[in-house]
Amino acid sequence: LKLIILGSGSATPSLLRNPSAQILNEADQNYLIDCGEGTQIQLIKYKIKIHKIKNIFISHLHGDHYFGLIGLISSMNLAQRKEPLTIFGPKGLDEIITIQLKYGQSNLHFKLDFVAINCTSALKIFENEFLDVTAFPLNHRIPCFGYLFSQKGKPRNLIKEKLPIDISVDEILKLKNGENVLDEIGRVKFNYLQMTTQQTYPKKYAYCSDSAYYENIIDTIKNADILYHEATFKEDLINRATFTHHSTAKQAAKIAHLANVKKLIIGHFSSRYHDLSENLEEAKATFTNTMLAIDGESYEI
Amino acid sequence: LKLIILGSGSATPSLLRNPSAQILNEADQNYLIDCGEGTQIQLIKYKIKIHKIKNIFISHLHGDHYFGLIGLISSMNLAQRKEPLTIFGPKGLDEIITIQLKYGQSNLHFKLDFVAINCTSALKIFENEFLDVTAFPLNHRIPCFGYLFSQKGKPRNLIKEKLPIDISVDEILKLKNGENVLDEIGRVKFNYLQMTTQQTYPKKYAYCSDSAYYENIIDTIKNADILYHEATFKEDLINRATFTHHSTAKQAAKIAHLANVKKLIIGHFSSRYHDLSENLEEAKATFTNTMLAIDGESYEI
Repeated sequence: LKLIILGSGSATPSLLRNPSAQILNEADQNYLIDCGEGTQIQLIKYKIKIHKIKNIFISHLHGDHYFGLIGLISSMNLAQRKEPLTIFGPKGLDEIITIQLKYGQSNLHFKLDFVAINCTSALKIFENEFLDVTAFPLNHRIPCFGYLFSQKGKPRNLIKEKLPIDISVDEILKLKNGENVLDEIGRVKFNYLQMTTQQTYPKKYAYCSDSAYYENIIDTIKNADILYHEATFKEDLINRATFTHHSTAKQAAKIAHLANVKKLIIGHFSSRYHDLSENLEEAKATFTNTMLAIDGESYEI
Repeated sequence: LKLIILGSGSATPSLLRNPSAQILNEADQNYLIDCGEGTQIQLIKYKIKIHKIKNIFISHLHGDHYFGLIGLISSMNLAQRKEPLTIFGPKGLDEIITIQLKYGQSNLHFKLDFVAINCTSALKIFENEFLDVTAFPLNHRIPCFGYLFSQKGKPRNLIKEKLPIDISVDEILKLKNGENVLDEIGRVKFNYLQMTTQQTYPKKYAYCSDSAYYENIIDTIKNADILYHEATFKEDLINRATFTHHSTAKQAAKIAHLANVKKLIIGHFSSRYHDLSENLEEAKATFTNTMLAIDGESYEI
């Protein structure tokens, strides 16, 4: 599971940082999270293959999070894409994209599906053999959703010398899935902890942009391996953060601490900040294991 | 009158060239012509003030000519713009922009007007004290318009020693506007050619993108000081040019020659061309005074 930051900026355009966009790479698939203007150029710059993007997750309909989407879709079509594409995001995205395709008289060569996200609490919205994705409401000026990407556990490894000769295939599958095999009256016949091992554990990545400080998300993102949380401002501008429904670096760090995540990445920086070292220090004072989102950088999860 | 190229590329995104956008600067106003994705970043990069853009001219609704518009409008609003903005372009642009502002819950602090261009022959669509703008149909896959920017003549300079003492203010204005002053029975009383001089002559800039080879435009763009004409391909791909309703470098040069323009700038280059020297040579063989559009370069008209 690898995260690549394509844009760590916020709404005001800047030569320092691109608007929000990220790639989560898992099992040779690229999951695109938000898609600000210019994202398709960032994808080319960092040599990320767009045909490996099958699912796109848009947090909300402020332009710095989705204005690059129509250009990316158009380019996929120009590149003769045939594979279906699914876009998850708030209601309205369907209408916005469709009207632009209509006036451009662009007939897509591929199937484009929209899934409107409209949940008031955490809701699983996507599942394949590798990942689950859960959407959850953030606290912003317009409907805005965070996304939790949870890797599925791989089957456990059997300890062959511990298996009885007469074990059935069904019983083996149960053990590999981390379940005990029970006898007729419900007693443990084979204990999966004794007969299998787990070499990797499933990872979790939580994406939270944009949001005011919002403790309601803590249960959902609890124990995530990486939390990306917006930190548009520093604490000296907390009033501006509150007014615009954004967070400070300290607030992002407080959420990371309360949610007991392993690592915090802060991003969505206001264009007023050229040097981000103070933003990082502010977060680290509350949550030590914090990193800055930097355009083009990769983070192993 | 100064032209600044912000993007000389075509639909397939490229690290070499940005999609179509240009600034025509006259009398401290910036006229924006087309607005592909990323135009607002190009404006920042080349230090062009967006508050001096009062009028935007969009040729057609293929994305590489307008996907940057909604981002630019949003940024103008973030920057607390108060001055009205007028956008000229094909029908549909109003709907596309309005729906995105609606879902972003963006209330504009300035007046945004749309003028739908729908002419079947050359039509004056804009006029102020410095410029006239004429729209004219091009030949593309969807409705597409060229724009001719015609500088207005400045008032002529008086030759003071030739003016009679008793000349009135009204008579002086007539002479400065290039009109003779007549007496009661219609004879020339004061000849403007004898009493005034003209130091500059009004310039014309014609913008033609995207279009197949199309001689119908020649009358409108005749004698322009600069013609920008798309030249997506070289002549070896003339079949592809014809099929996609684009032009080759040679065809652009032929139009320049037939229209007797002073200078040709070719642009809208396919992303397949890294080195453009052959494209330039191909055009120059037919029309010597040809230049390449290069992102960030300025051209005095």
